[in-house]
Amino acid sequence: MPATMRALRKTQPAKGLAIASVGVPAIGPTDVLVRVRAASICGTDLHIYGWDRWSQGRIKPPVTLGHEFCGTVERTGEEVTAVKAGDFVSAEMHVNCGHCHQCRLGEAHICQNVRIIGIDQDGAFAEFVKIPASNIIKLDPSIPERYGAILDPLGNAVHTVLAGPIAGQTVLVTGCGPIGLMSIVVAKACGSSTVFATETSEQRRAMAKKMGADAVLNPASEDAVRKILVETGGTGVDVLLEMSGNPTAIQQGFKALRAGGRASLLGIPTENVPLDLVNDVIFKGATVQGIYGRRMYETWVKMLALLKAGRLNLEPLFGEREPLEKFEDAFAKLQGGLPGKILLYPDGISG
Amino acid sequence: MPATMRALRKTQPAKGLAIASVGVPAIGPTDVLVRVRAASICGTDLHIYGWDRWSQGRIKPPVTLGHEFCGTVERTGEEVTAVKAGDFVSAEMHVNCGHCHQCRLGEAHICQNVRIIGIDQDGAFAEFVKIPASNIIKLDPSIPERYGAILDPLGNAVHTVLAGPIAGQTVLVTGCGPIGLMSIVVAKACGSSTVFATETSEQRRAMAKKMGADAVLNPASEDAVRKILVETGGTGVDVLLEMSGNPTAIQQGFKALRAGGRASLLGIPTENVPLDLVNDVIFKGATVQGIYGRRMYETWVKMLALLKAGRLNLEPLFGEREPLEKFEDAFAKLQGGLPGKILLYPDGISG
Amino acid sequence: MPATMRALRKTQPAKGLAIASVGVPAIGPTDVLVRVRAASICGTDLHIYGWDRWSQGRIKPPVTLGHEFCGTVERTGEEVTAVKAGDFVSAEMHVNCGHCHQCRLGEAHICQNVRIIGIDQDGAFAEFVKIPASNIIKLDPSIPERYGAILDPLGNAVHTVLAGPIAGQTVLVTGCGPIGLMSIVVAKACGSSTVFATETSEQRRAMAKKMGADAVLNPASEDAVRKILVETGGTGVDVLLEMSGNPTAIQQGFKALRAGGRASLLGIPTENVPLDLVNDVIFKGATVQGIYGRRMYETWVKMLALLKAGRLNLEPLFGEREPLEKFEDAFAKLQGGLPGKILLYPDGISG
Amino acid sequence: MPATMRALRKTQPAKGLAIASVGVPAIGPTDVLVRVRAASICGTDLHIYGWDRWSQGRIKPPVTLGHEFCGTVERTGEEVTAVKAGDFVSAEMHVNCGHCHQCRLGEAHICQNVRIIGIDQDGAFAEFVKIPASNIIKLDPSIPERYGAILDPLGNAVHTVLAGPIAGQTVLVTGCGPIGLMSIVVAKACGSSTVFATETSEQRRAMAKKMGADAVLNPASEDAVRKILVETGGTGVDVLLEMSGNPTAIQQGFKALRAGGRASLLGIPTENVPLDLVNDVIFKGATVQGIYGRRMYETWVKMLALLKAGRLNLEPLFGEREPLEKFEDAFAKLQGGLPGKILLYPDGISG
Repeated sequence: MPATMRALRKTQPAKGLAIASVGVPAIGPTDVLVRVRAASICGTDLHIYGWDRWSQGRIKPPVTLGHEFCGTVERTGEEVTAVKAGDFVSAEMHVNCGHCHQCRLGEAHICQNVRIIGIDQDGAFAEFVKIPASNIIKLDPSIPERYGAILDPLGNAVHTVLAGPIAGQTVLVTGCGPIGLMSIVVAKACGSSTVFATETSEQRRAMAKKMGADAVLNPASEDAVRKILVETGGTGVDVLLEMSGNPTAIQQGFKALRAGGRASLLGIPTENVPLDLVNDVIFKGATVQGIYGRRMYETWVKMLALLKAGRLNLEPLFGEREPLEKFEDAFAKLQGGLPGKILLYPDGISG
Repeated sequence: MPATMRALRKTQPAKGLAIASVGVPAIGPTDVLVRVRAASICGTDLHIYGWDRWSQGRIKPPVTLGHEFCGTVERTGEEVTAVKAGDFVSAEMHVNCGHCHQCRLGEAHICQNVRIIGIDQDGAFAEFVKIPASNIIKLDPSIPERYGAILDPLGNAVHTVLAGPIAGQTVLVTGCGPIGLMSIVVAKACGSSTVFATETSEQRRAMAKKMGADAVLNPASEDAVRKILVETGGTGVDVLLEMSGNPTAIQQGFKALRAGGRASLLGIPTENVPLDLVNDVIFKGATVQGIYGRRMYETWVKMLALLKAGRLNLEPLFGEREPLEKFEDAFAKLQGGLPGKILLYPDGISG
Repeated sequence: MPATMRALRKTQPAKGLAIASVGVPAIGPTDVLVRVRAASICGTDLHIYGWDRWSQGRIKPPVTLGHEFCGTVERTGEEVTAVKAGDFVSAEMHVNCGHCHQCRLGEAHICQNVRIIGIDQDGAFAEFVKIPASNIIKLDPSIPERYGAILDPLGNAVHTVLAGPIAGQTVLVTGCGPIGLMSIVVAKACGSSTVFATETSEQRRAMAKKMGADAVLNPASEDAVRKILVETGGTGVDVLLEMSGNPTAIQQGFKALRAGGRASLLGIPTENVPLDLVNDVIFKGATVQGIYGRRMYETWVKMLALLKAGRLNLEPLFGEREPLEKFEDAFAKLQGGLPGKILLYPDGISG
Repeated sequence: MPATMRALRKTQPAKGLAIASVGVPAIGPTDVLVRVRAASICGTDLHIYGWDRWSQGRIKPPVTLGHEFCGTVERTGEEVTAVKAGDFVSAEMHVNCGHCHQCRLGEAHICQNVRIIGIDQDGAFAEFVKIPASNIIKLDPSIPERYGAILDPLGNAVHTVLAGPIAGQTVLVTGCGPIGLMSIVVAKACGSSTVFATETSEQRRAMAKKMGADAVLNPASEDAVRKILVETGGTGVDVLLEMSGNPTAIQQGFKALRAGGRASLLGIPTENVPLDLVNDVIFKGATVQGIYGRRMYETWVKMLALLKAGRLNLEPLFGEREPLEKFEDAFAKLQGGLPGKILLYPDGISG
């Protein structure tokens, strides 16, 4: 084992990131050291790169970023039995406290004292990352590395889609960033009937079509709500999966939702959203769900079962791969609106 | 049978109501004619009396008001088998179409083509009212007349409380009008642990205390959210039952709700409500439910079972009783903020 | 309109059926008269043909059989608004009372006073059949006639599969008669991961494979339970869909079910089944569901959405088509173990 | 701290138990050492005392029994933060593995690799007991010691009652041992309407009446099923809570269950039970639930909320208290059919 490693870190309370040499993490009796194979860049990483207001309040530099990844187990603490060296793994990066009200209720994903690896402590944009054994997820060797690297956002999509009935349901996905795109695939795999998607970016609309959306609408140039109502015989969709965080998209989504429908909100608005509660929620008898993270670990179990059974084709999302050192290129492309995911390889790209 | 009867009607598109003599309703083969024993005044009736904007768009005078009542079956159409003359009954006043998407899904209470008796057609502020047999509810003779007259709003309360888990849950009721007050009683009867209530009216706060609330707070003079958070160890309440429609109360209710909690909204805001969706719904993983009417007819079945078993003590709500003719007094008292319900007696008060 | 029509009837309390000429049904104000296009033979029809003990207790000859069909609306009663002449339709043949405890709870499929068209009154093995408007199901013209004729059993399959979570679940279907076979297709369409099927008939096993089962086992010649446990890492399947009614299959199904799993029982055993309740249900924390009919009408809504979206490929089930007069051939083939469905055409085969 | 302590142990693979002097348990970094205040005898302890077949297969002497108790924290491992010395506590005695399919799904109570303290390793019939911090339950000081000592079986009752809807439901409890009796109280506290109970022991029937059952029947001397059907208008009860494990009681319970009802089975039959699956489960559309242990830790959270709010009056269950040394008397009384619970005091009785 080397004593040091390369890592992509927030080193200063300012815009930008830097490659640095840091010590390989020491592990305790219940920890696992993972050699990172591939890691993926999240929208959150872009916010931290840009040092926005949220980042300034949350991030304490220096810290290594990266919370979407897969790799192989390098070493395990003496009390770890769930995995062994050489196992192909990913991890749930939300580390819960285990004793708050939510943890006791089986709602660990909304733990009051959660710490996130790659946000609150050193993450996976590095050659090695330390993970508590409770959070390690062993992957079937048949799962491709590129899928292994994006299980965190795919888990968001699976959690959102499966937060209520989906089989035989009409669905509207508002916002076709990576999680929105994945949601289209997951919804179709789980029996949704018609899937509508709205998105203002032409590139993303094209991607949504490739991922299987039945109808892709541009709310900037057409009356998407009206079209959806017409297509559903005036009733509206059974399920709204809100993936944009955009106040207008949220409002339109609610207008397109049928009475008695489900609205699952994952996109993060940056300001208060004025809602027509009477007409869009109360008189409609609608159910609105805030979606955060992934259920620990029901979502993982179902996601891995779907993947192992070959039910989720996410190929259009992949394409760009970069060694860790070329992070500036990767961040620039994503900032520029590239749809899909970019994978970073701390050990270099091979295979 | 007389040919005409007295009825309290909206006779003109203007403020006010009037007693009028109208024909006793003719019934079809699947209808039931009910002799009204007691009827109760709803907040909606006050809006119609006052001829507000909503009333002007919805009400087509002349029409007899009244949608909370009980009585005895006077006559039945030839195809009616569920009840017979002399039966003690009430009715669900939302008449559903039976073939829209929602009706087909067992969500008749949010039927796309609903018509409400007492709003869209002649109601129960009269000596007789015509009800389709499907909507007649036979009451156990042990249920007191005063309870029989308020099953419509009690059903709202039962529907709201039982829209999710309630046993062993901490609860906040925001707004202590009649339905809020009933919700306190229903929640306690169904195993809630601590019930908090917020209300700005002193009279209603006193009533909330009588109905069994464990802690009653005045949000106009104290930091109710902070007190509730302190009392729940910083966690917040498991369940919010929003009964006020007041934007500030709604916002405070969400702040007092725990991560993973349920917010059931029945109160009707008259404008858009700016919601902090990120912190109050999404990051919290909260579930928000729009509540409308009563489930047809699951809510009725459970409500009547609770009543028959003597689990709901609503006595503090009752008090004022008036013959139909004294409706002006009754409406004035309610407009003046009298807490609780006023019953009207088309045949005069007896017993 | 003709005054009489041909119908396939149980005319005597004895084995066999006969073609008879009977009056075209007269309809009331809320009825629909349907011209039958295609009807399908159910296992229940075989029992009635054979005049087994159950039939002797239930069937009151003379009666026209047939409860799986599609056709076009010929005439409607004056109060019918949901369909009009020429509409392509099928029907839910369980006619519920509307006022028993179950009907009031939205569980009309287990109504205490149910009457079944084609069992308790004249059915669809005839040129015309009379259906109450509440039970008529309007079909999208894009749905093929052969699918329209088997919606009753397909509804059984959809009801069973969707009686609990199915996405990302491993499934065991015990028994590959028509409903078992359909369940395989529905489960896959709704996101199940691995689907195991057990069946002793070689023909049906071949069919199960064609319909998409991942592993088809013959419990008569191999240790199916052990194989399933091995394939699931010793855990067992998440979901058991019991379609055989065979006591041994039921017992094996429970042994192959994981702790915390769901067992949905639709197959009808003809005797008491000794269950190892401690090990198979109680210590396992399992959920066992009795499945009867189809939810009225949630199952229909979801089934039709799946069909319209092209998610259910049932082609291997079809093949044999006969004019009504050739019923003896059709019944003989089914009695002989032919897998799949045979359609009867009262008006002759065309198209 | 003393080095040794008194403990009630199975010392030999034979009938009987013995008081022995053993070392005070050494604790690891994540363990808690609890000074036992009061412990309660479970039916399982009687089986182990009697050395029945199940005990012979499961118990590996020597081992200290006792899995129902409360006490105060004596010492904590260095990594324990959830409790501190002096805290009033009880514990969940099922220790789960954390990584099996069920643990990953939030169903830790049916963990495939569970170990039970007091069965598989030294338990609480001793001056001190060692508990992993994850399983420690901190109790509100307002909860009486006698309640603290029986939270394990009370948790069984709460888990069973709350395994489905209970508010406004009619309930049948078959078998009035301690958990059956507690279930009556929990069901009433959570809004059940009529609660029927069946029991052959006169003493226990008297106790059931005291605990709040509305109708207590002796199935040995009256037709309990018929009486329940008559009382429910021919419909049957909404919920069956099976607490006896007796095959006849199970069969009668199913006959008294309404179509669409819920049967929650906790009692443990010692042989296969022949079930009329067609009429009692399938045609009824019933839901049958195996109930094991308590949900970890949702059941605890709800149970403690109910207790803290004073909603559960279990006083009739208490009475007998003995120092640990008098265990023979206590076991003899319970073997003789004494209803209710006997508490053992390792440090002697005080207060």
